[in-house]
Amino acid sequence: MTWQEICKEKKAHQLDGVPKEWLASDVPPATHLSVIDYPRQTKVLSPLDLEITDSTVATLLANLASSQWSSVQVTTSFYKRAIVAQQLTNCLTEIFVDRALARAKELDEHLAKTGKVVGALHGLPISLKDQIGIKGIESCMGYVSWVGKVVEKNSALVDILESLGAVPFVKTNIPQTLMWPETFNHVFGRTSNPYNRSLTSGGSSGGEGALIALKGSPLGVGSDIGGSVRIPAAFCGIYGFRSSYNRIPYAGCANSMEGQDSVHSVLGPMSNTLDGIKTFYKAVSSERPWLKDAMVIRKPWSEEEYKLVDHGNGGKLCFAIMWDDGVIAPHPPIRRGLEITKMRYWPQVIKPYKQAEITHTIGAIWAAGAAEDFKTAAAPSGEPVISSMGIESQAEDPELSFRPTDPPGKDPTSAFELWQIQKKRRDLRQEYLEHWADTVSQTGTGRPVDAIISPVAPYTAPPHGLNKFAQYTMTWNLLDYPALVVPVSKVDQAADVKQPRSEFYTDDDRENYELYNPATYENAPISIQVVGRTMEDEAVIAMSEIVDEALRKTESGTKKSKF
Amino acid sequence: MTWQEICKEKKAHQLDGVPKEWLASDVPPATHLSVIDYPRQTKVLSPLDLEITDSTVATLLANLASSQWSSVQVTTSFYKRAIVAQQLTNCLTEIFVDRALARAKELDEHLAKTGKVVGALHGLPISLKDQIGIKGIESCMGYVSWVGKVVEKNSALVDILESLGAVPFVKTNIPQTLMWPETFNHVFGRTSNPYNRSLTSGGSSGGEGALIALKGSPLGVGSDIGGSVRIPAAFCGIYGFRSSYNRIPYAGCANSMEGQDSVHSVLGPMSNTLDGIKTFYKAVSSERPWLKDAMVIRKPWSEEEYKLVDHGNGGKLCFAIMWDDGVIAPHPPIRRGLEITKMRYWPQVIKPYKQAEITHTIGAIWAAGAAEDFKTAAAPSGEPVISSMGIESQAEDPELSFRPTDPPGKDPTSAFELWQIQKKRRDLRQEYLEHWADTVSQTGTGRPVDAIISPVAPYTAPPHGLNKFAQYTMTWNLLDYPALVVPVSKVDQAADVKQPRSEFYTDDDRENYELYNPATYENAPISIQVVGRTMEDEAVIAMSEIVDEALRKTESGTKKSKF
Repeated sequence: MTWQEICKEKKAHQLDGVPKEWLASDVPPATHLSVIDYPRQTKVLSPLDLEITDSTVATLLANLASSQWSSVQVTTSFYKRAIVAQQLTNCLTEIFVDRALARAKELDEHLAKTGKVVGALHGLPISLKDQIGIKGIESCMGYVSWVGKVVEKNSALVDILESLGAVPFVKTNIPQTLMWPETFNHVFGRTSNPYNRSLTSGGSSGGEGALIALKGSPLGVGSDIGGSVRIPAAFCGIYGFRSSYNRIPYAGCANSMEGQDSVHSVLGPMSNTLDGIKTFYKAVSSERPWLKDAMVIRKPWSEEEYKLVDHGNGGKLCFAIMWDDGVIAPHPPIRRGLEITKMRYWPQVIKPYKQAEITHTIGAIWAAGAAEDFKTAAAPSGEPVISSMGIESQAEDPELSFRPTDPPGKDPTSAFELWQIQKKRRDLRQEYLEHWADTVSQTGTGRPVDAIISPVAPYTAPPHGLNKFAQYTMTWNLLDYPALVVPVSKVDQAADVKQPRSEFYTDDDRENYELYNPATYENAPISIQVVGRTMEDEAVIAMSEIVDEALRKTESGTKKSKF
Repeated sequence: MTWQEICKEKKAHQLDGVPKEWLASDVPPATHLSVIDYPRQTKVLSPLDLEITDSTVATLLANLASSQWSSVQVTTSFYKRAIVAQQLTNCLTEIFVDRALARAKELDEHLAKTGKVVGALHGLPISLKDQIGIKGIESCMGYVSWVGKVVEKNSALVDILESLGAVPFVKTNIPQTLMWPETFNHVFGRTSNPYNRSLTSGGSSGGEGALIALKGSPLGVGSDIGGSVRIPAAFCGIYGFRSSYNRIPYAGCANSMEGQDSVHSVLGPMSNTLDGIKTFYKAVSSERPWLKDAMVIRKPWSEEEYKLVDHGNGGKLCFAIMWDDGVIAPHPPIRRGLEITKMRYWPQVIKPYKQAEITHTIGAIWAAGAAEDFKTAAAPSGEPVISSMGIESQAEDPELSFRPTDPPGKDPTSAFELWQIQKKRRDLRQEYLEHWADTVSQTGTGRPVDAIISPVAPYTAPPHGLNKFAQYTMTWNLLDYPALVVPVSKVDQAADVKQPRSEFYTDDDRENYELYNPATYENAPISIQVVGRTMEDEAVIAMSEIVDEALRKTESGTKKSKF
């Protein structure tokens, strides 16, 4: 078979196991851009399905534990909504209804028999990015060459999730190579943004972003090496957490650029509520994941750090806003998102520090072996390595696309040259530590700033193929800072007008400025990220809760915040 | 100046700041091999000097805190003994008497004035491997090119040690490049083993090994990327700890192969007593080193883990002995060291697991850029990169020397090739985790083995230039397992007879077998290492204390243990 035939065949059978009655027959046409409210309209979902799928993770877990809702019921409701989401945005890869419902039934029976839940996630359906290995299911990751290769052993995370009582029920779409901040591959196609289908869902965890925004999953797991959890979370208006390296187990997952030991990809939770993020992180990190994955740091969930012992017990926090990185100025909606967040605090401004150098360094580390890695994975089937996330017409112009992983020169980078780049990374981490520590003189708390509030991207979700600048997320990956995305509002054409500007930091800055017009971005979510220092994961969750609560309070008082 | 002239000049001034009365005039000639008891004989050291320098770290700290001994007195006594050690074994690099005594005086004045110690190491002299940066002092690391370059800023560790009240007083010798398990460079020359000066002190922290064995320092800091703390500790009969990656801060130190992000060098304490190891590790890791060094894991000293909560609270431990790695069989004294240790326990045998592959992988990671790194550092002065640790006649035969960092082929390794090797490393770490976990069925404790007792090398200290096989230490670096060297006994010609053997695992095994004859190794210390799982540093210290106590108990009862 040609690679195209393999793709066609795989895609043709994607919905094979899905009951016919779960398929909506009145799906809006592609020209209908916002589909975020469609699940409420389709007859596929019953009032109970809607009640369940609209619930927070905390409510779901409580009602599952009390047997008010069975896991079979909850899993079925989310499955139905996930299939609707698939019809609307093409967000799924693997679908395994029978298996998931059988697992749910086992959990229900266990609870009925013993009166006890299996673990902290008892009965909860959970969606997983395609790369996360589940025994017996494929993880082709959008590579045609890998289609049909069934995973032989659960990944460490899936083992832990199952021991906690979770029900993995769908896998979600990604870009080929994982190294794009959008979501398109030859096997499964493109995932769109449910708020505006002419816009990207972001990537590489774009399937999770679209699925969770449509409430087709209460909790999902993505991965992030340069923004791949946070970009789709921000573009799709949900919460997403890039934790520090090696806290959540990665062993047993498919991946790109394996063996790259300097800037690690991390798995991270995505959810409609912060309680979903915290519940996942606390549950997984409390399960001694270092006994399952040799790379995981022996550091269990710290309730002390969550209570902000190192941040004045949360009493008077001082956040610093990074309005602009001095390389690419954010679009008006992003600036408004920061303004809304600022209203509730007494924030300092943190000066950008060597942002261009940081971006260059992380890009160069990836580029050192990326081209060869991608080629090696794609070659066996004959499919080309994708060179653009644009729709067909854009794909012709490689300049239009974001390619963080192009090799810097023609010769392959040598190991010694890579060491020099990695040395630069270490130095930048050390310098940024000192840069952060130096803020102690400005805060009035006796501490340096407690967290940084930063844009997630210089724009809200752009049209497909135009997500070119990922430095607002990549920065924190290079520094290994935990960062949690919190939704703030949505683009409002009246509020987010384009301002004239005649001077630009860089050509990229000008290009980005020209990209903006309010109509294109209508309805796109606006988000910020709360950034802490390395391994302050628990504190970042706690500080995000404080920010989030403040933002939700303004919800009723001001039109500026819509979530 | 030629590089030879630079070396001569530097060496000529090494003792410039040392008071004449500290220099022993009756130093034994080189033909006198064991000098371990010489400090007791020289007139340079007074009875009080001997009493102080023979004390444990705990006694020193108690007497310093109570002002029974001033820091000036303690520092002077150790300095005098360190200079004697220098005359006997050539173990020092930088010597800065005035500065150290001025610091000691400040500490004494502070205590007299406030009645309080500055910190947990108040007044304690501490020796540092040459690479550890102290503001105002050189760290040429044996490279002629770096002679005269004064360090501008304290390393993070020195900042912390000073805040704890320690008194850095000497720096210690290393091999050029640091990547040899012996100690010789063109600037400072060779360090010998005080138990038998025809034998190597080991390396790369060989200066520390010889100095501490002669009690010229109560506590020193070495570094270990493949055994560089443990090999000299074992060869010189002292304690030495390779902790897990990124617990002890490394920022601000000179190093080899910087930017190599896969197998990290770590700093580790060396001392004559385990209390020195614990005191250092607990004090430094409790000082929030992650605020000083961006690479340090936010994981403070855990008293719980030290109390062995994950090991049945220390009640009934099960150790596994690795008698032999199946690649190179240890010499008879090493085997006897393991037998002595075994007497006190109920140990299981842990099967070696892919030892050859582990050694090959770590060697290949280093080799990927090592040759270029060494060349770059050595080139400016014109000095050659050293290709053997042998004495002159041996230096002619490169086959005689251990060179873990030779490139595997002629072409430089590409970054992508390096990633493939590093992927192998990750897989081996994961496999070993499972290999360890599988021992649960054999222990009878309900847990896998609590620790592994392993040789440190397949021999006790060999003659200069013949330390070729470092896999017994490198294994734990690849796996990032903390490992603590505990001395057991000394070579005894009557007990450690050569046994006939006709079959060999490998050519290296045969070569190693042929290397042994009891007379050559007379008086050399025998040691073992206690190995735990990643980040179990506190538990490894606690388990080593248990092993050590048992070994010390046999001391009076049996001739087998001499320490």
